[in-house]
Amino acid sequence: MNTKPNILVTNDDGITAPGIAHLISLMKKIGHVFVVAPDSPQSGKGHAITLENPIRLNKVSIYEGIEAYECSGTPVDCVKLARNVLFKNVSFDLCVSGINHGSNAGINIIYSGTMSAAMEASLENIDSIGFSLLDFDFDATFSHADNYINTIVHQVLDQKLLGSRLLNVNIPKYGDEPIKGIRVCTQGSGVWKEDFQEGVDPRGRKYYWMTGQFISEKHQEDTDLWALENNYISIVPSSSDLTDYDQINRLKFLQS
Amino acid sequence: MNTKPNILVTNDDGITAPGIAHLISLMKKIGHVFVVAPDSPQSGKGHAITLENPIRLNKVSIYEGIEAYECSGTPVDCVKLARNVLFKNVSFDLCVSGINHGSNAGINIIYSGTMSAAMEASLENIDSIGFSLLDFDFDATFSHADNYINTIVHQVLDQKLLGSRLLNVNIPKYGDEPIKGIRVCTQGSGVWKEDFQEGVDPRGRKYYWMTGQFISEKHQEDTDLWALENNYISIVPSSSDLTDYDQINRLKFLQS
Repeated sequence: MNTKPNILVTNDDGITAPGIAHLISLMKKIGHVFVVAPDSPQSGKGHAITLENPIRLNKVSIYEGIEAYECSGTPVDCVKLARNVLFKNVSFDLCVSGINHGSNAGINIIYSGTMSAAMEASLENIDSIGFSLLDFDFDATFSHADNYINTIVHQVLDQKLLGSRLLNVNIPKYGDEPIKGIRVCTQGSGVWKEDFQEGVDPRGRKYYWMTGQFISEKHQEDTDLWALENNYISIVPSSSDLTDYDQINRLKFLQS
Repeated sequence: MNTKPNILVTNDDGITAPGIAHLISLMKKIGHVFVVAPDSPQSGKGHAITLENPIRLNKVSIYEGIEAYECSGTPVDCVKLARNVLFKNVSFDLCVSGINHGSNAGINIIYSGTMSAAMEASLENIDSIGFSLLDFDFDATFSHADNYINTIVHQVLDQKLLGSRLLNVNIPKYGDEPIKGIRVCTQGSGVWKEDFQEGVDPRGRKYYWMTGQFISEKHQEDTDLWALENNYISIVPSSSDLTDYDQINRLKFLQS
């Protein structure tokens, strides 16, 4: 690549989250960085878009030398506004979303604002990568994965993605052992088993607050959940085509 | 089936929408119906869940003889509360979501609260169907598809779904010609091309409001977009496994 690539950065934890700050610091060494990210935490927003309300955008100067905007909408709104309003004349070579504070491996991808923002960019034919760290902590360490993130981004810029042009990258939590490497995986199976804390608000009305834990079976070796459990970074090529192709023929009995 | 099936009904247009009222009227002839649906329109909420705020539930008596609750959360929240709080002792044979006022064919599935609610139920191992009508009108006619909806529901209850246990059913708008039949399809390709109306609010602050139009190429004959254009009901078996399997081998260069 002769000129520096144009890289759109977004996330779902909000524009002030340490994860996006870390990602911006890595990307600005690689390309021209443009940032649009939510002005408040948007975890678990999935592929939500804002239809019923107006959306606000404010320029922010918290990242030195970077054109950055905070957005009152969802992560997907951020990408749509980046593409259609703020940077409509920029040809993006890559969109990176994250680094998310918390896993987006397995079924988490469908709830994830981080991955939905990346998917939205992929629908605009931009190679897109969502990065997530298996650590919810605000003060989580991200730097143990710097070399891997740099390598992945350089390789994607160099070789280009095909198909749905979307990667779901999850990174083991910082620990005693260094990361073992990178595995290209399938999406592991498992579900969230919700519990709801019931309470009574100050005005005497009952409420429910979602909690839950991730339940998954023994992980098959080719899945992201297995890779992460074994201290590898997982990469799942992911698609916005939700067709369950295996069922097409079986379901022909429904035709009339 | 010897006993009447237990059917969970939800939607994203809200519990008072004509579409869910019509679906309830059809389902109560088939099984025991339980309803949890949003208390306000939740179109475009995708697979969003409510993590940052408490959720409210209120029993409503607008559907005679039916246990029904309105929920302040998203469509996916509705299903989670149905399963884990309200009807935790009910073994559901089916979840139906809709009938949505507007298409969820093609890429619309990923933005759709209707389909996300159905997908959430499928993750709980409940056979699930999202129904959508290609008509946004509040006063849209639904009854031209009654026989088809009844047939699909009876066949699914009888034969059971496999795989991801999720069907995306879209119904042509009521028109001069009767519906031609049912086609089992793949998800058609196409994207939303957004535009944003820019305005100034009463306090003098700029806002952006999303509009847009659906752009799609010429539709291949096996896709839902083709079927609908040709006045068939489309059924796309859909999956929560987003792995882009075709790319796994090509991307092995990313491994280390």
